[in-house]
Amino acid sequence: MKKSLGSRPFIIPTPVWCVGSYDSNDKPNIMTIAWGGICCSKPPCVTISLRKATYTYGNIMKRQAYTLSVPSEEYAIEADYFGMASGRDVDKFKETALTPIKSELVDAPFVEEFPIILECGVIHHHEIGSHTQFIGEILDVKIEDDMLTKEGKADMEKISPLVFGPVIGRYHSIGNFVGKAFDIGKKYPLKEQ
Amino acid sequence: MKKSLGSRPFIIPTPVWCVGSYDSNDKPNIMTIAWGGICCSKPPCVTISLRKATYTYGNIMKRQAYTLSVPSEEYAIEADYFGMASGRDVDKFKETALTPIKSELVDAPFVEEFPIILECGVIHHHEIGSHTQFIGEILDVKIEDDMLTKEGKADMEKISPLVFGPVIGRYHSIGNFVGKAFDIGKKYPLKEQ
Repeated sequence: MKKSLGSRPFIIPTPVWCVGSYDSNDKPNIMTIAWGGICCSKPPCVTISLRKATYTYGNIMKRQAYTLSVPSEEYAIEADYFGMASGRDVDKFKETALTPIKSELVDAPFVEEFPIILECGVIHHHEIGSHTQFIGEILDVKIEDDMLTKEGKADMEKISPLVFGPVIGRYHSIGNFVGKAFDIGKKYPLKEQ
Repeated sequence: MKKSLGSRPFIIPTPVWCVGSYDSNDKPNIMTIAWGGICCSKPPCVTISLRKATYTYGNIMKRQAYTLSVPSEEYAIEADYFGMASGRDVDKFKETALTPIKSELVDAPFVEEFPIILECGVIHHHEIGSHTQFIGEILDVKIEDDMLTKEGKADMEKISPLVFGPVIGRYHSIGNFVGKAFDIGKKYPLKEQ
């Protein structure tokens, strides 16, 4: 029996991604978001939504660029902190002793210690309500070379990204391999028989 | 050492959500997507991106509504199938013996057997490139009542949603609880000291 929870921003899973930007003094800032997702294949684009009040919002509006750094499970505490503190009040890189690296492709920094980073140039932004949605073209994806499988693909288990449950406020790791995409579904017919 | 993978639509985690819609004959259709995410808190909105060639694209353009049904791990095969077959060629509900239920709030069906469903009315759509992005206002979230904790919150472990790694094409379950959000990060200072 289904129970109504009302109109609320809840669905699972949501990501845990850290948005890198520079402020007007070139100070690197980093902020964790769960409101985002890939939104286009060609060009490859990823969207993030921010409240105007965030320090990151102003940074991205000026520089028209951001990075996404994907924290592995071991950086859950830092990722949570990046979503709580504001770059207006504190230097989050300095406090956590994590390392900002200037992207060579876009005007934004990423987190050296995190296993996957995306370098994004803003191509659109849309006002929705409480949040502004930025659409960033993914100019490059970089990954730690020891996080690749023998076949040169990203190894989900080694990377061990975080998964978020909004409203309930829980971080989980990723679990067991369940199946291969575009494969296990072949059990059912693709055409009427 | 970070290695470049090039410009591609890759980041983890991405969701596995099934989009419900009606075609022009009122036949329910269901399609799995990984390109999506929450994009606003007030009003609560979730975005999905679709290629124009999909059957679901035309359905949503006409009805201006969709549902998202979140499959639990036990429905990984069906979820994969929903992302491979087209509603133009086959009745995916019929083939999998899953049950379409007409939403009372929006002009779209959801999957009765899946633990969480969202009913969404389209408020915007944007052309990006290969994909059109739909922004749906979440009018209600419904959850199976045996998937709630004692405190009445969604139980991530019981729901057991799928997590997707695009490009590498892998479904994973969610794993262990790592920490509470807006809590574990308090280890670091919120203001300069």
